[in-house]
Amino acid sequence: MESGPTRKSWIESATLTPPSLADNTADQERLLNVLQKRLGDASVRLDPNLVGALPQQLRQWDYALRCALIRDGETWIVCGWTGIADPQPLCGLAIDLGTTRIVFSLLNLETGQVLLEESCDNPQGAIGPDVLTRIHYADEENGRRHLHHLVVDGINAMIAALCQQAAIPRDRIVLLALAGNTAMTHLLMGLDPRWIIREPYIPVVNRPGIPSAARLGLDVATGARIVIFPNVGSYFGGDLIAGILYSGLDTREKTALLVDVGTNAEVVLGDRNWLIACAGAAGPALESGVSRIGTTARPGAIDRVRIVGPDRHFELRTIENAPPVGICGSGVIDLAAQLFTRGMIDIQGRFVPAACGTRLRMVHGEQRLVVAEADATAAGKALTIGQADLDSLIRSKAAMYTILETITEAVGMTPAQLSTFFVGGTFGAFIDPRSAISIGMLPDLPLESYRSLGNSSLEGAKTVLREPESLARMDRIRDRITYMELNVNQAFMNRFSAAKFLPHTNPELFPSVRPPGSNHTAVRPAGRQKGQISG
Amino acid sequence: MESGPTRKSWIESATLTPPSLADNTADQERLLNVLQKRLGDASVRLDPNLVGALPQQLRQWDYALRCALIRDGETWIVCGWTGIADPQPLCGLAIDLGTTRIVFSLLNLETGQVLLEESCDNPQGAIGPDVLTRIHYADEENGRRHLHHLVVDGINAMIAALCQQAAIPRDRIVLLALAGNTAMTHLLMGLDPRWIIREPYIPVVNRPGIPSAARLGLDVATGARIVIFPNVGSYFGGDLIAGILYSGLDTREKTALLVDVGTNAEVVLGDRNWLIACAGAAGPALESGVSRIGTTARPGAIDRVRIVGPDRHFELRTIENAPPVGICGSGVIDLAAQLFTRGMIDIQGRFVPAACGTRLRMVHGEQRLVVAEADATAAGKALTIGQADLDSLIRSKAAMYTILETITEAVGMTPAQLSTFFVGGTFGAFIDPRSAISIGMLPDLPLESYRSLGNSSLEGAKTVLREPESLARMDRIRDRITYMELNVNQAFMNRFSAAKFLPHTNPELFPSVRPPGSNHTAVRPAGRQKGQISG
Repeated sequence: MESGPTRKSWIESATLTPPSLADNTADQERLLNVLQKRLGDASVRLDPNLVGALPQQLRQWDYALRCALIRDGETWIVCGWTGIADPQPLCGLAIDLGTTRIVFSLLNLETGQVLLEESCDNPQGAIGPDVLTRIHYADEENGRRHLHHLVVDGINAMIAALCQQAAIPRDRIVLLALAGNTAMTHLLMGLDPRWIIREPYIPVVNRPGIPSAARLGLDVATGARIVIFPNVGSYFGGDLIAGILYSGLDTREKTALLVDVGTNAEVVLGDRNWLIACAGAAGPALESGVSRIGTTARPGAIDRVRIVGPDRHFELRTIENAPPVGICGSGVIDLAAQLFTRGMIDIQGRFVPAACGTRLRMVHGEQRLVVAEADATAAGKALTIGQADLDSLIRSKAAMYTILETITEAVGMTPAQLSTFFVGGTFGAFIDPRSAISIGMLPDLPLESYRSLGNSSLEGAKTVLREPESLARMDRIRDRITYMELNVNQAFMNRFSAAKFLPHTNPELFPSVRPPGSNHTAVRPAGRQKGQISG
Repeated sequence: MESGPTRKSWIESATLTPPSLADNTADQERLLNVLQKRLGDASVRLDPNLVGALPQQLRQWDYALRCALIRDGETWIVCGWTGIADPQPLCGLAIDLGTTRIVFSLLNLETGQVLLEESCDNPQGAIGPDVLTRIHYADEENGRRHLHHLVVDGINAMIAALCQQAAIPRDRIVLLALAGNTAMTHLLMGLDPRWIIREPYIPVVNRPGIPSAARLGLDVATGARIVIFPNVGSYFGGDLIAGILYSGLDTREKTALLVDVGTNAEVVLGDRNWLIACAGAAGPALESGVSRIGTTARPGAIDRVRIVGPDRHFELRTIENAPPVGICGSGVIDLAAQLFTRGMIDIQGRFVPAACGTRLRMVHGEQRLVVAEADATAAGKALTIGQADLDSLIRSKAAMYTILETITEAVGMTPAQLSTFFVGGTFGAFIDPRSAISIGMLPDLPLESYRSLGNSSLEGAKTVLREPESLARMDRIRDRITYMELNVNQAFMNRFSAAKFLPHTNPELFPSVRPPGSNHTAVRPAGRQKGQISG
């Protein structure tokens, strides 16, 4: 499945010789013959949904038009068109279909320029917040159909809103690219997700292909196709393939690692010669699972914590600077790192009462640390964190580090040998790598090794719409990945136990992290710079 | 578009290794991987309509199944399936979509055996008997949609009836093949036929491809595909391609000719190296256009005439031996041949009163010859033929012969040099070549040169269902045909004028036909046998 010579876009213009008695070629073949000459290497077809309008359109456009073509295996498919003189562009829509949020990017398919980006909740959240609940619901009568319609209607509503805002008619959207996890992708396609969560965890499809958007019920141009990212299995979805595509991991000479941090830690290691992947439960603490005050990233969520000065003053940053409503995953990591480096928790993550001072209070018979006082919060109640929350976070960070150790060891490396460490996923974009290193969640690499990819799933989808050759890369990535089942054996458990300390039982793994108590801030060796993740 | 190594049928069985933790390949890819190993040369896909049912079916069938696969360009498409142990066969349906009649053949796709053949009127006849009326109607509001539904509903009703009669569930029909003229094919597909009849006569598609049967509205198995024969232009349709396929004209070493006789005379000349075709109006006399007594082939239609004995007694044969209701095309040719050889009409086709005797009567002021007396007919009225009817027939036969002369001359041959002369079309099957030769409509070849193909359109469709390699042949035939526009110039008109005599101005072209008056029956040279067309 090569996509042929490098093309700058999915658009091709065609000027046809009008029919005559001497050349009675049919409308369809008249167009295809011209495109065939341009594209050469593979056959060209018209999406069946477009054929009906062809005679009228050709004559209306005086036999000169711009076509959107998508490469499907050995065939180019004309999936959209407009008259050559039309001032409006043919558009593409990239979709990151998340379990919680759906993010959209409307592009000018002819230039690659982003016109608008918006997001909405995944309407399937009404059935249940997680994949498992929804898959069980799909077994109920009409459950699968209902889930399908929920997400399709939600996407259609956003398409309508985006088009209105961008003043682009809906039938301008001729090509879509969608990346999501395996379960979300199956539910969108109306496929039975039943076996995804049951041993031995089998999806219906690994390669959804490039179906007709109309077939899925999407309100876009007649003939529009949707590139749905393939998956490697039930627990390694198209969102990850999109992330790899966007990071360029598959084209690099030097081995690098990509981690997508969420409820699962999904990790890919490799270079242009090989790709190895694994996924493991990283625990809920990293997303929104910190009890009582945990929240997803939304206005008012504390996403950054600094504990400053001798009186250990808490400097909190919230999303959109709204009054605090809770603390999101990146905030929890920041908080734990600050508590540890300021000596307020010990290497096992236990509160150090002497250092915590008056911030440590009994709440409902439990010792809790006040993160934000009642008068500073949105709800007028203090935001506090308990020992159980910290324990949960430590299990999560230990799981993450153990997975990283395991996958690098599988290829004879250590995490410290990685030249580049991509952090994918919306959540990953907000993690301060210094904090993640401080608690031993990410390996102690030079900060410049860390690259945040932002919403790598969406960016991967955009890449397919912008760079035709990336479609073949997408397929190659899927086919090349060796998926490693995480074997949770004694060796893994030993590693996990060692990683449950802050930053680690073996301090040599984290030379830049100074043990708490000795100093209030971590001092980095020369040559390492503090700073934001370079994106 | 090669169809790969020779296959005996479109069926392939597949036994899959059930999924396990060690092999988490998705259901779709699990099946496709097995089929891919068998088929090797091209990629294999599942029809999108089948994917939804896949997880349940695979588990129900214990991962062992029989699949119907159709080759679409460089891709094999699984278009139907059943469990490996299922005693019932996967079926195919061949359809000859005629303007007047639709003929169906239900086949066991696994053995190629015909289960049932039936026909029905084309329900679009309610709009108009001919292509032109229907195409004009298609321009009216909802006209095109109405015509589409008429024919689809008609086909669905026949499918239901066939399946009931054969005790085969409708969802057993997994593959269809349909041959029809360009207009009928367009109307079935719901495509705008407007430009077919307007200069420069452009169809919407030359290659309809292998669409989903469900997409056309046909009630057959989910996933079923329909091979629609391609056309060379508005006036050279898929029915002709089917005829060429069935005749094997495209694979023969010796040059042969195929003529499909109807309102149009469609002629193809060629061999395995080249194919040249042309079509011309042969006039209405050959179908049902003989005024007053002309009829299509239906019960009671006179299809054979012999004038015997010194009193010139008329022996009439009717379809199903019903009382005469009219005279069909083959009967008209027979009648004219007999009148001519018995001296009752002269070489210009004019009545010879002395020979006609009392059969020649004045009817409504016009001299007419009685074919059947009033007391012998269904309506109780005499069936008669007038000079205008004979003139019309003679123009038709002259047109046919002129077309044959023109096309053979175009390649430096004469009609007499043809080794094989295929006569296609349902109507063609009934023509007695001796009669057609006697009036100079067909060239004076040895009778064994004439081969009737019967319903060559239907047989061609059956061939596609039975012989996978014929699908690529179908495409090659279409691509290889050189369509010759009949240039109606002075040379053509001179030939036409010469052909308007019985059998011809130049009697040397018809050595086996003795001039009337000299003898009552034509005497053939030794070595030529009388007899029915060998079919």
